[in-house]
Amino acid sequence: MAKLTSWVDVSGDSDFSIYNIPFGIFSNNSTTPRVGTAIGDQILDLAAVAKLGHFDDLNMDKNVFSRPVLNDFIALGKPATKRVRKRIQKLLSDKKSPLIEKPRIFIPRQKGKMHMPVSVGDYTDFYSSIEHATNVGKMFRDPENALLPNWRHIPVGYHGRASSIVIDGTPIYRPKGQVLPKGADDPQFKATERLDFELEMGFIIGKNSQLGTPVTTDRAEDYIFGLVLFNDWSARDIQKWEYIPLGPFLGKNFASAVSPWVVTLEALEEFKVYGPKQTPKVLPYLRFKGPKNYNLHLEVAIKPQGGKETIISRSNFKYMYWNMCQQLAHHTCNGCDVKVGDIMASGTISGNEATSFGSMLELAWAGTRPLTLDDGSTRIFVNDNDTVTLRGYGEKNGTRVGFGKVSNKIKPAR
Amino acid sequence: MAKLTSWVDVSGDSDFSIYNIPFGIFSNNSTTPRVGTAIGDQILDLAAVAKLGHFDDLNMDKNVFSRPVLNDFIALGKPATKRVRKRIQKLLSDKKSPLIEKPRIFIPRQKGKMHMPVSVGDYTDFYSSIEHATNVGKMFRDPENALLPNWRHIPVGYHGRASSIVIDGTPIYRPKGQVLPKGADDPQFKATERLDFELEMGFIIGKNSQLGTPVTTDRAEDYIFGLVLFNDWSARDIQKWEYIPLGPFLGKNFASAVSPWVVTLEALEEFKVYGPKQTPKVLPYLRFKGPKNYNLHLEVAIKPQGGKETIISRSNFKYMYWNMCQQLAHHTCNGCDVKVGDIMASGTISGNEATSFGSMLELAWAGTRPLTLDDGSTRIFVNDNDTVTLRGYGEKNGTRVGFGKVSNKIKPAR
Repeated sequence: MAKLTSWVDVSGDSDFSIYNIPFGIFSNNSTTPRVGTAIGDQILDLAAVAKLGHFDDLNMDKNVFSRPVLNDFIALGKPATKRVRKRIQKLLSDKKSPLIEKPRIFIPRQKGKMHMPVSVGDYTDFYSSIEHATNVGKMFRDPENALLPNWRHIPVGYHGRASSIVIDGTPIYRPKGQVLPKGADDPQFKATERLDFELEMGFIIGKNSQLGTPVTTDRAEDYIFGLVLFNDWSARDIQKWEYIPLGPFLGKNFASAVSPWVVTLEALEEFKVYGPKQTPKVLPYLRFKGPKNYNLHLEVAIKPQGGKETIISRSNFKYMYWNMCQQLAHHTCNGCDVKVGDIMASGTISGNEATSFGSMLELAWAGTRPLTLDDGSTRIFVNDNDTVTLRGYGEKNGTRVGFGKVSNKIKPAR
Repeated sequence: MAKLTSWVDVSGDSDFSIYNIPFGIFSNNSTTPRVGTAIGDQILDLAAVAKLGHFDDLNMDKNVFSRPVLNDFIALGKPATKRVRKRIQKLLSDKKSPLIEKPRIFIPRQKGKMHMPVSVGDYTDFYSSIEHATNVGKMFRDPENALLPNWRHIPVGYHGRASSIVIDGTPIYRPKGQVLPKGADDPQFKATERLDFELEMGFIIGKNSQLGTPVTTDRAEDYIFGLVLFNDWSARDIQKWEYIPLGPFLGKNFASAVSPWVVTLEALEEFKVYGPKQTPKVLPYLRFKGPKNYNLHLEVAIKPQGGKETIISRSNFKYMYWNMCQQLAHHTCNGCDVKVGDIMASGTISGNEATSFGSMLELAWAGTRPLTLDDGSTRIFVNDNDTVTLRGYGEKNGTRVGFGKVSNKIKPAR
């Protein structure tokens, strides 16, 4: 990779280096939401860049940068969006860049308001970390046979709710629902007592497929635009009572949260690594060539109201047993179609040490091992007024590409 | 209900009487898809009616009738859509109607092409027939304890795939997927051998709710625009291997099919009846007042290639244990939001006799009691080149309001 430096001030620990150039939807003051990129502590207004004519020779509809979601931009296709990203890199690194004379097209990130990056058609959640699936199996089923028989053959997944996916910063009200208290004969309707996060990554579909036509593992990357951090908020007591036999429903669909900047697959290319060996060998439609995992450092922090945050988990996206290409190939092997803007989340990303588990359920082992925060308070699940933050980034040879954060404060049940 | 008669010729057994006035999206020749209603064997072009000024005094955006989906029309809200329906009834019954002079705004239904009526944001499938849930429990779990402990407390449901919902007439390719053949140690990837239909009704959300704010049972009807027939196509062998612990996924998401005409809740008002008694008493948020079930006759037919169809099931929407108001109240009790165009399906609608079961799984009792068709051939599941058709209607005091049909032919796996 050619060495690039931006004339915009970018600190060494910024997620938004010149090598990143993510895409997101922002507004400032009372302007309408539109497309921007992040560089250091600034948002570059891409609708303004387009109006100045800097994409004119790229032969595309410039109006896509003025839309309130990225779907139309993404739908231009990878050849086009790659050219835009390269052009932005050039404009932000060229010492004679015409943008140097245009400080008003930069907005400090602190002053920008971020919006949902895409209109989500369908959302699917996988269950692809072997450590997470094993932990759940040990806690709730048989410690000796923690993984179910299908787990090593299928990237197990289920459909989630698209409407309740929210952006970083959105407060989450503690949900109410039906639960069966321990020892009770009849269920009760009450606020969840087991509110949990799930540390996940989500990928955003970049190309429509046709109903009836599978996307193979070797074509899958063409259909993945980029990634976001994803918090699959969960209410474990509601989930436990409802999920047999048709899976999670109200225990999940009160909210999921994403980080605002979509980091492209191109920006993450440098961080590709091989994943865990898959045993037994998977069926032919799930086989793939080359490294398909990503070495991305992930962390979870909890901040009590008025207090300081404590990092309670450090995990890595490279731990995934099933990779995104396999997930997409599986999802479409029966002919199911995917659409631009769909989100597919990884499932909770746990490592094999207790400090790398990706949910409170695992970190506090179903309530049996309370976590102590830096302020001395303990948690077995998430409390009212706690703020939970997920962060993630890749770093290699001094190059950093990150996701920023997805952070939500829990408000008491209404 | 005041007695109405249309000056358009409508046979006594037509689903599309003057009391119906459903809404759908049609095109003819090479025109663009737009909003229409069905009356007898005709489609009335509502974009044309709007252009002629017949809705001018209703104080609404007339452009909604020229859109390729009903979402914007529905989003006008019930007071507006009710007025439109009443106006159409008047225009089609008034002996001095100005439309009598405009035969070109009617298109024979045979010549119209129907399209998906709505852009579906999220799709949820319930499991609300006690006969169906009991049959499944008897076949696959414990005949003595067929219903799971949560079933009488929760209108059990799960999220489905919106992208693969198709319209009446769309061919369905037999899906491939992972299955674990009986006695095998390892799964195989192959075409399903247990392709099944599910006789369901779907309701279409007519009003956005806010994330965090439940829709109560007594407000639920305000959020339901209308109903369609719904075939939840299923691959039982794929479903069986994948569904533990997170529910149905590829066994369902290769296709679901809807009938093209959305019949409004207003048109179905006459067919309201009380549903089965719920025991034990449900939790307060699931209680409701008055009749909330609907006496709608439903049937399923199979037609082999080149042969005649055999009606293999006669059921009724009134059998539902959980009604739509309860389903919607449950779905939103945790704050999950709903959007105009979302579809919520009932789950398989089975009666308590073997001739009223709503899936091949039940009709042929998991393959153990083959069904004989009128041509002498037998079925345990659906064969290639079979056409499966669902039909439904209400009838009372000589008034008939129906749904037409949803019909799909199965093509061999690709």
